[in-house]
Amino acid sequence: MASQEIENLAAALARLPGLGPRSARRAVLWLVKRRDQALPQLLEAMEQVRDRLVECETCGNIDTQNPCGVCADPRRDAKSICVVEDVSDLWALDRAKLFTGTYHVLGGRLSALDGVRPEDLNIAPLLARVEAGGVDEVVLAMNATLEGQTTSHYIAERLEGFPVRITQLAHGLPVGGELDYLDEGTLAQALRARRPV
Amino acid sequence: MASQEIENLAAALARLPGLGPRSARRAVLWLVKRRDQALPQLLEAMEQVRDRLVECETCGNIDTQNPCGVCADPRRDAKSICVVEDVSDLWALDRAKLFTGTYHVLGGRLSALDGVRPEDLNIAPLLARVEAGGVDEVVLAMNATLEGQTTSHYIAERLEGFPVRITQLAHGLPVGGELDYLDEGTLAQALRARRPV
Repeated sequence: MASQEIENLAAALARLPGLGPRSARRAVLWLVKRRDQALPQLLEAMEQVRDRLVECETCGNIDTQNPCGVCADPRRDAKSICVVEDVSDLWALDRAKLFTGTYHVLGGRLSALDGVRPEDLNIAPLLARVEAGGVDEVVLAMNATLEGQTTSHYIAERLEGFPVRITQLAHGLPVGGELDYLDEGTLAQALRARRPV
Repeated sequence: MASQEIENLAAALARLPGLGPRSARRAVLWLVKRRDQALPQLLEAMEQVRDRLVECETCGNIDTQNPCGVCADPRRDAKSICVVEDVSDLWALDRAKLFTGTYHVLGGRLSALDGVRPEDLNIAPLLARVEAGGVDEVVLAMNATLEGQTTSHYIAERLEGFPVRITQLAHGLPVGGELDYLDEGTLAQALRARRPV
């Protein structure tokens, strides 16, 4: 039998998204064999995340400072707010290095199925930011899923009446997408939003 | 951009087998969101593995004690040694709760491709255990791969001349295996080893 310590670590790792019980067990063995090097490195990285990260009170981003690096950066355009469902979406957009405004993280999406209501999301602080003034544009960058789009519509409605431009990410062919492999929904959106060359 | 702490943790997690860069990133976000509970639990489990586990000098198993729980257990039959490639194989066999003898972990398999030679494996200590006497049977429980079987043959040869019974795991249909889905190698082995009902 594997020792209790190993079982505990396997159980803790198996809770991570993307790791099942079997792959967690393999990961444990990998770590056990590298308990002089890779394991302490992973430990230290985790301790730093535990000790140093805070949630930005302005936008909901997670960073070592509050306000976060994005909100505090004077080169970023505070007049433009990009609303995303989750911190990982913020990271993904920022990796694209195109958007130079600030973000607002909702912390989820509206979902009747999962019982997520507007008051469960970080929406009121977004409205407060817009209400405080100085915001020109709100970019709705929800996922192109049913729930993401429902959330998008809801926020657009709540922002009606404010003097801000409300935009959303374009839908269409992904880069490298082959028509033959794309779903009809994407093709319909791409066709509907066709532009002169 | 995600903070350096997050990038570091993502990089450390991405080195685990079974997690790529993308799933490591998702795991980090999951941990960041649970840095009050799941993250400290995982940290503690890792610290215990780092601090408490040692390799058994007798059999190569990894446990909190040396000799390991299996070698030290008086109810286990020290006359029978089951030789496995890796600690995970020992765990897998022990989960089956059928074998009541002791184990010997080789720490790998002979491989011309990976440059693993007999002296790289934990083979000499196995021969020493057999030579010391008191062993009746050596069960070769290598993987049913080319390299596993090569290793098996090599060890069987090295054990020739010792007064021990050398056996190996049966090859055949796995439980629940459907003939239509099994490879010819397995079917040939199962047919060759057929037994009266």
